[in-house]
Parts: sequence; C-alpha cells; structure tokens
Amino acid sequence: MGYVYGGLIASLIDCHGTGSAAAAMHRHRGGKEGEEIPRFVTAALHVNYLKPTPMGPELVIRGTIEEIKGRKVVVSAELSADGVVCATGKVVCVEMPEGMLKS
Amino acid sequence: MGYVYGGLIASLIDCHGTGSAAAAMHRHRGGKEGEEIPRFVTAALHVNYLKPTPMGPELVIRGTIEEIKGRKVVVSAELSADGVVCATGKVVCVEMPEGMLKS
Repeated sequence: MGYVYGGLIASLIDCHGTGSAAAAMHRHRGGKEGEEIPRFVTAALHVNYLKPTPMGPELVIRGTIEEIKGRKVVVSAELSADGVVCATGKVVCVEMPEGMLKS
Repeated sequence: MGYVYGGLIASLIDCHGTGSAAAAMHRHRGGKEGEEIPRFVTAALHVNYLKPTPMGPELVIRGTIEEIKGRKVVVSAELSADGVVCATGKVVCVEMPEGMLKS
C-alpha cells in the first residue's frame, strides 16, 4: 500500500484552511448565503505528520476556527483516514489584499 | 501576473527539506558519493508566506541544516524569486522507518 505525499497533505490543509476562513469571516460579518464571500491567502501553514496517510480510503479534514481578528483568521485542521487522525495542522489566513484580486 | 499556489510552495520546501536531510545525514555518517543514502519523511512542516511568489521567474530554495540528532534532521529553507525572499520554512525530517521502505 502506498502513502499520500506530504506536500499534497499540506496542500489539502492549506486549501481547507483558507476556504474555512472565508466562510467563517462571511458568517462573522453577517453575510448571507449567495452573497460574495471574502477571499483569503495563507500567511503561515504548519503541518504535523503523525503517521503515514494511506492511499485509498477517503480522507476527511475537519477545520476549527480558532480566532477571527481584523482581517486574520486562524484555522486548525485534522486530517483522518478511516477514522484515524494522520495529520494535524494550523493555517493562519489573511484576507486577500485588493491588489491580488484579478478583475 | 499570477502567483504560485501556496500548497506548491509547501511541497517544494517539504521536498527540498527531506532531500537536504538525506544528504546531510549521509555526509554526517561519512558516506561516500555513489553509496546509498538514507531516506527521510517529514514529521513537521512550517511555512511562512512573506509575500506573493510571482509566477515566471526561476524559484531558488536554499536549505540550511539546523540540527542532526539521532534519526532526526531539522532543515530551514528560504524560497526566493528574482532574489526576493517570498517564503521561509522549517522541515523536521525523520529517517524513514524500515516498514515504509518498499522492496
């Protein structure tokens, strides 16, 4: 059996983190479903690889909003395969500067 | 101009870290060129995204061996584009357990 590449796990946690941050900020500001949600970039990413992540089973990532402060949202994440936590992470997300948004 | 995806930057730093760890441990043990080198997995990965990394210029990553202790090697890394440091990272690498090696 093969294992999932650590860089992909980092990507999954990063992606899940910025998505969760955007949803959390939207809700925090009282945004409604269907309205445009803010976009976030990653300021810092930390991943702890607890055990090899098996290739095959569906991977589940659960994000928890740790902090919302100004334009910053901190999300912790737990990645599991078949109910076993294989990696944990923390993503420090910052609302995207206007200059990075494409028209 | 587009920017490089943060997950890819994490992957590059991860990959560069484990490669550097293997080379450093090989040298640390007095290994010679051409001999088999040890293989490492990532125990923890930390990336700080200092500024957007532009798409286009060649990316340069410089790794520095911070610590070699038992089966663990800690590598710090700096990623730059056109001479500008865009991200820094730290990779805690552990020599691969026998069970993970494929025949």
